[in-house]
Amino acid sequence: MLNFQFRNPTKLLFGKNQIANLASEIASEEKILVLYGGGSIKKNGIYDQVTDALKNHQVLEFGGIPPNPEYSVLLKALELIKREKITFLLAVGGGSVIDGTKFLSAAAAYQGTDPWQIMQTKKVPDNTLPFGTVLTLPATGSEMNSRAVITREDTQEKLSIRVDALYPRFSILDPQVIQSIPQNQIANGLADSFTHVLEQYMTYPVAAYLQDRIAESILKTIIEIAPRVMSDPADYEAAANYMWCCTMALNDLIEKGVPTDWAIHMMGHELTALYHIDHARTLAILTKSHYEYNLESKKEKLAQYAARVWDIKKGSTEERAMQGIEQTECFFHSLGIKTRLSDYTPDYNGTAEKIEKTFLARGWEKIGENRTLTPGDVKQIVAMAY
Amino acid sequence: MLNFQFRNPTKLLFGKNQIANLASEIASEEKILVLYGGGSIKKNGIYDQVTDALKNHQVLEFGGIPPNPEYSVLLKALELIKREKITFLLAVGGGSVIDGTKFLSAAAAYQGTDPWQIMQTKKVPDNTLPFGTVLTLPATGSEMNSRAVITREDTQEKLSIRVDALYPRFSILDPQVIQSIPQNQIANGLADSFTHVLEQYMTYPVAAYLQDRIAESILKTIIEIAPRVMSDPADYEAAANYMWCCTMALNDLIEKGVPTDWAIHMMGHELTALYHIDHARTLAILTKSHYEYNLESKKEKLAQYAARVWDIKKGSTEERAMQGIEQTECFFHSLGIKTRLSDYTPDYNGTAEKIEKTFLARGWEKIGENRTLTPGDVKQIVAMAY
Repeated sequence: MLNFQFRNPTKLLFGKNQIANLASEIASEEKILVLYGGGSIKKNGIYDQVTDALKNHQVLEFGGIPPNPEYSVLLKALELIKREKITFLLAVGGGSVIDGTKFLSAAAAYQGTDPWQIMQTKKVPDNTLPFGTVLTLPATGSEMNSRAVITREDTQEKLSIRVDALYPRFSILDPQVIQSIPQNQIANGLADSFTHVLEQYMTYPVAAYLQDRIAESILKTIIEIAPRVMSDPADYEAAANYMWCCTMALNDLIEKGVPTDWAIHMMGHELTALYHIDHARTLAILTKSHYEYNLESKKEKLAQYAARVWDIKKGSTEERAMQGIEQTECFFHSLGIKTRLSDYTPDYNGTAEKIEKTFLARGWEKIGENRTLTPGDVKQIVAMAY
Repeated sequence: MLNFQFRNPTKLLFGKNQIANLASEIASEEKILVLYGGGSIKKNGIYDQVTDALKNHQVLEFGGIPPNPEYSVLLKALELIKREKITFLLAVGGGSVIDGTKFLSAAAAYQGTDPWQIMQTKKVPDNTLPFGTVLTLPATGSEMNSRAVITREDTQEKLSIRVDALYPRFSILDPQVIQSIPQNQIANGLADSFTHVLEQYMTYPVAAYLQDRIAESILKTIIEIAPRVMSDPADYEAAANYMWCCTMALNDLIEKGVPTDWAIHMMGHELTALYHIDHARTLAILTKSHYEYNLESKKEKLAQYAARVWDIKKGSTEERAMQGIEQTECFFHSLGIKTRLSDYTPDYNGTAEKIEKTFLARGWEKIGENRTLTPGDVKQIVAMAY
C-alpha cells in the first residue's frame, strides 16, 4: 500500500426529498446564484423544488451551461456574479454544471486579467466563493470531489483542475431525479462511473487488498443495477445504488494508497474536444485498446478483475485478463454504447496523429500509472480504437 | 436504501513515517498537551518521533490513561489543561487514549460543575478544544469518527457519546506501529473491527447493495490478513490493510443508508464494567448468542454473509445463516479469543440478571436494529453466552 493523505469535507444529503433541506444548508443572508444547464430542471420539477426551498432567500439564476462546460458561457455567468455581488453559488445539474460552478467559485475571487489561467496553472485564489450542489445526473462524482474539467471551444482545449478549495460545501443527492433522465444519459453515467473505478483500479497490485475490494464492490454493484436502471429509472432501489456508486467511484476514497492511471480520460477528453462525442462514450471507445496495448503491465489486475467481478476463473493470467477486457466491452454494449471511434465519426482518419501532436504540445510526455506512455504510445492506442 | 447525511471532516495521514508531519499539522503557536496511556510509546520509539516532530512547539504531557478511559484519571488531565491553558490536545495511543482526549476536548470548554453531564446528556459545549491523534493501536476507529466511550469506576458506568464536534482535526496512521503491539492486543483489534462491521451489516436487507459489498470487503480483508498480522506484526502489507480496515470499519461510511444494530456493544460494555474483560473479547463472547437469539430477523443477512464472506453456498437460508455464525466464532477462536463468559470469570452466575437490571435502570427498553429487544431479551442473550 502506498502512503496517502485523505480529507473530504463535503457534506452529503442523500435520499428522498432532501432538496427541501436547502433552506437550512445555506445561511439566510447569502445572495445565491442558481446555475443550471439546458433547462430540463424546469420540466421535471427540480427547479420548483429548489425555488420552493429557497423562497426566503435572495436568489438569482443563470441557465444554459452546456455539456462540457464552455468557458465563454461561464464568463457570462462570472460577469453576473460580479455585477450582482453574489455570495453563494448553487449548482443544480450534472457534472458539467457542477464543474462550471467550481470554475466560477475560483474565478469570482480571481484578480488577474485572464481567468483561463486558473485552468492553465491549476491554482485558485484564496477566498473562493462557497457553493453547494443539487445533483440531477449521477455520473462524474463532481458532487463530492474537488475536480473540475472545463472546455474552451476557441482553442479546442479541455483542461482539468483539482484543488482542495473546490470541494462543495454540501451536495444533495435525491435518487428520484433519475426518473426524468433520458436513457442515453443514464447509460453515459453508468459507463462514466464504471470507468472512473477502472482508472483507479486497473493498474498494478500494491497489496492494497481493501481498496481493491471496495473498487470491485462498486463495479459489481454498477453491473448489478445497470439493467434495472436502464429499463426502469423509477426503480428507486436501483436508482439509489446507481447514484451512490457514481459518488463513491470518484470521491477520493478508492484512489488512496494505490497507483492511478487516468490515461483513458486524458485521451478521451481529446476525442470530445475534436468531435463533441459524449465524455462517457469516449471512455468506452478507448478502454479496450488501452488495456490491450498495456496488457503486460496491467494483466495481473485485469485477471483479478475478471475473476472477482466477472467470475472468470479459468485460464492463464493473460487469458483471464483478455476475457476481463472482453467483458468490459460487452458491458458497454449492454448499455447501448458503441465502442469504436468510427461508430461516432466518419472523419476518424488522422485522429491518432492529431492527439499525439496535442500531447506533445502540452508536454504530456509520460502518462499512465507507470509514467511510461509517450505521445507515440497514445497515437497507437487511439489508432487501435478506430 | 435509507436516507442519510454524511460528512466526515477528519484529515488522515496514512503510511510510513507520517509522524514527522505533526509539525506542519499543528500551528506553531499552539500550546500542546500530549496524552498517552501506559507508557509503551516510550519503549517503542513513537514518543521520540512525536517529541522530535514537535521540538519547536510548546509541549506538555499527560500519561497514564488506562484502557477503558477512566473518568477520575481524565479529571486530573482536565485540571492540567485548565491550569496550563492548553490550546491543542494530541492523543498518542489507541482508542482509549483517543476517546479520553475527545472527552477532554469537550470538558475543557464545559462551564458547569459536573463534567460527567457531558456523557449523560450527550451534549458538548461550543468551542471544544481542537485535537489530533497519532494512532498506536488500530481497533476502535476512534481516529476517524466522532464517538467516544468513557468509563466511570465509582458508578460502574461505561457511557458513549457521538457528536460532530468530536471528529479529530487530523489522525496520523503509520502501520509500522503495529510491530510493537502485543499479540493479544492485535487479536483484540481484529475482533473489534470485525464486530464493528457486523453491527452495521448484520441487520435486515434494505437493497443497499454497495454498502453491503463494502462491509463484506472489510470483513474479507480482515479475515485475509489476520493470520499474517498475528504471526508477523512487522509484515507491512498486512499491517497496512489491518490499520485501514479498522478505520474504514467505523468512520461512518458503511452505516450510511442502512439500519444498524449495536446491541452487542451495548451488552458488551456491561461485561467490561462488571468484570474488566477487554472490550473486544466481550464482543466475541456475545456475538454468537446474539445472532442465534435473533436468527429469525437476521437470517437473510447472515446467509448472505455466509455465502459472500465464507463461500458457504449450500443449504437453506437458516442453515447458511447458522454456518455463518459458526464461522464467526471459529474466526474469533483463530485469534486466540475465547467466546464464553465462563472462560473469563468464575462469577458469571447472575450476570444476565444484573445487566437486565442495568438496562431497565437506564431506560434502554428497546434496542437492536428493529428496536424490539427488551431488557428481558438481553438477559436471555447474556445467559446464552455463559
